[in-house]
Amino acid sequence: MTDKSVEAGRRHNAAALLEKPKPDEPGLDALLVSSLTNVRYLTGFTGSNATLLLFRDGNAKLFTDPRYTVQSKQQATCRIRIAKGPLTKSVLQEIARTGVKRVGFESDRLTVTEFEALKKDLPSRVELVPVAGLIEKLRMVKDEGEIALIRKSVNLNSRALERGLKRLKVGMSEADLAAEIDYQSRKLGAEGPSFDTIVAAGPRAALPHAHPGSTAIGAGMLLIDMGAFRQGYASDMTRMVYLGKADAKYKKAYGAVLEAQLAAIDAVRPGVSTNAVDRAARDVLKAHGLDKEFVHSTGHGLGLEIHEPPRIGRKDKTKLEAGMAITIEPGVYIEGWGGIRIEDTVLVTAAGCEILTPTGKELREL
Amino acid sequence: MTDKSVEAGRRHNAAALLEKPKPDEPGLDALLVSSLTNVRYLTGFTGSNATLLLFRDGNAKLFTDPRYTVQSKQQATCRIRIAKGPLTKSVLQEIARTGVKRVGFESDRLTVTEFEALKKDLPSRVELVPVAGLIEKLRMVKDEGEIALIRKSVNLNSRALERGLKRLKVGMSEADLAAEIDYQSRKLGAEGPSFDTIVAAGPRAALPHAHPGSTAIGAGMLLIDMGAFRQGYASDMTRMVYLGKADAKYKKAYGAVLEAQLAAIDAVRPGVSTNAVDRAARDVLKAHGLDKEFVHSTGHGLGLEIHEPPRIGRKDKTKLEAGMAITIEPGVYIEGWGGIRIEDTVLVTAAGCEILTPTGKELREL
Repeated sequence: MTDKSVEAGRRHNAAALLEKPKPDEPGLDALLVSSLTNVRYLTGFTGSNATLLLFRDGNAKLFTDPRYTVQSKQQATCRIRIAKGPLTKSVLQEIARTGVKRVGFESDRLTVTEFEALKKDLPSRVELVPVAGLIEKLRMVKDEGEIALIRKSVNLNSRALERGLKRLKVGMSEADLAAEIDYQSRKLGAEGPSFDTIVAAGPRAALPHAHPGSTAIGAGMLLIDMGAFRQGYASDMTRMVYLGKADAKYKKAYGAVLEAQLAAIDAVRPGVSTNAVDRAARDVLKAHGLDKEFVHSTGHGLGLEIHEPPRIGRKDKTKLEAGMAITIEPGVYIEGWGGIRIEDTVLVTAAGCEILTPTGKELREL
Repeated sequence: MTDKSVEAGRRHNAAALLEKPKPDEPGLDALLVSSLTNVRYLTGFTGSNATLLLFRDGNAKLFTDPRYTVQSKQQATCRIRIAKGPLTKSVLQEIARTGVKRVGFESDRLTVTEFEALKKDLPSRVELVPVAGLIEKLRMVKDEGEIALIRKSVNLNSRALERGLKRLKVGMSEADLAAEIDYQSRKLGAEGPSFDTIVAAGPRAALPHAHPGSTAIGAGMLLIDMGAFRQGYASDMTRMVYLGKADAKYKKAYGAVLEAQLAAIDAVRPGVSTNAVDRAARDVLKAHGLDKEFVHSTGHGLGLEIHEPPRIGRKDKTKLEAGMAITIEPGVYIEGWGGIRIEDTVLVTAAGCEILTPTGKELREL
């Protein structure tokens, strides 16, 4: 085979990890990939029912069902087996046929029922080895094609925000503004939102996970957290707007969060551990007496999924590498008053980082 | 406790199932409910991180995290434990404290990693028993409140289709029409689509799982499969429209599918097994020489999820009961030509069934 696709390169890199999946453990002969996102990453196939068997030599076989006969041929850059019955049965036949002995499986993706079905008819020589996060580890560092797609998703998302804000009227509900934003995002080419759009007005901004509801948007603060999927890749941004003239308390808190966000971004560069980035934001908020109001992590990786490793939190020690795409999103939340969060999507580069999100962060009054 | 909530009744019914979860097996002292939908059904709580421990006497304890302190108090109709660390740790403490011995778990919802975490610190006297589909079985038959919500979701969905079709213009892309439909659905009060809206023009209607794409909608057939979530409950409908004057082949195929759909609906009544309903549709298509083109099942249950038991397929033998909400959606797919599917949401009643979907099914030309 002279497969020079991007996915073949990824399969080659993934296969290399099978040599030593964990310290002090022998290598794996094959890896059973159950996560559809990991299957997509390694093959290009986007169907809703698939499993991949990846061998130590970099070869791979994709299993899917007859609904995807045409689509899998168009998309997948590896061998394909169209299974008539349950995929597990065909996978077991392939395991038997190829004589592999130690087969890793994604224990954080397979249910107990699926695992038992696999184990039931397994040849006795085969050992199933739980491994979790192996492909996710590879996916942390994005290649050039992926970075280009994330950049486009981020730009689309920023345009959708501006179009949505043009349609904002005092008295409209949070849910209606969220619907406008999602609609604009789709019109700009998004497959859909990368998570449920958050629109939280006034005191409701104090709930970090507010679902947009029937609350009318009036004078005061408005928090908008939104992202798009575009050609499979996610974006993520939070912006605040203030309807009317911002008061002193809002201005002060906004300034503190922005300072924290910029400090965290300033800390981003290859070799720095993620908890140091988190600390940079937390230290600034502490200096403003607002660290107790910062109740979540500073950020997370994103790509084919909206939440991917690494986490940028207090206890996370992943070393940043060039090519990682992460969010930086400190926030403060005060019950009864409201909340402020500012979030960009950021790319780790050799020199430090690049803020991908083009939307400005000056205090914005409408 | 004198909890007379709807959910308390459901917990009572669920607890009764613990007496004999499977034939020839002893009862369970408790059930660990991991599916968020099942947790919602049994408690009213809609947060994104929760586990429920349901005891044989009908008592239950909900575990969630500090983000949901306020929300869980507002929603849940049972005891609540706000866990500071991982939920599993708190669940294990409760298992130890209450002295239960045989604990069922939802093996089709728990990953191997989650199961291992649970098993690791389990008191030695406790046996974990895999059970799957227990609560889903209860959920098959809807109560009056649920039926009212499904009815509203179905009506909203039909209104959204009409509003979407008003915005249909020749030359517009499938993706843009899907965006219009989803937008109208949101404006009418949907939380979002109950699945990715399908808009498939011309020959693309031959793909039962077509994602709306950049294909321009022109003269010819157009398949639209759409559903909404409204107050948590799903609707599901497929309609065909023909842009221009339908030709003889389309008319003939449309007539055959409609006849099959009506025959299946006619077969729906309590006591009938689901495969008999499937067969009713299949027999009609066979008489028209189109049975080989009907490549999927006739329908499925729906409620808090878009796909729930029972399946209405060739091999499914669930006996229908009054209160089940199901779809009836036969279709035929011809590569290179297109496809036709007609789908209603239907309620099984004591007398037979009620078609909930108000949208007409006459051949529609635009």
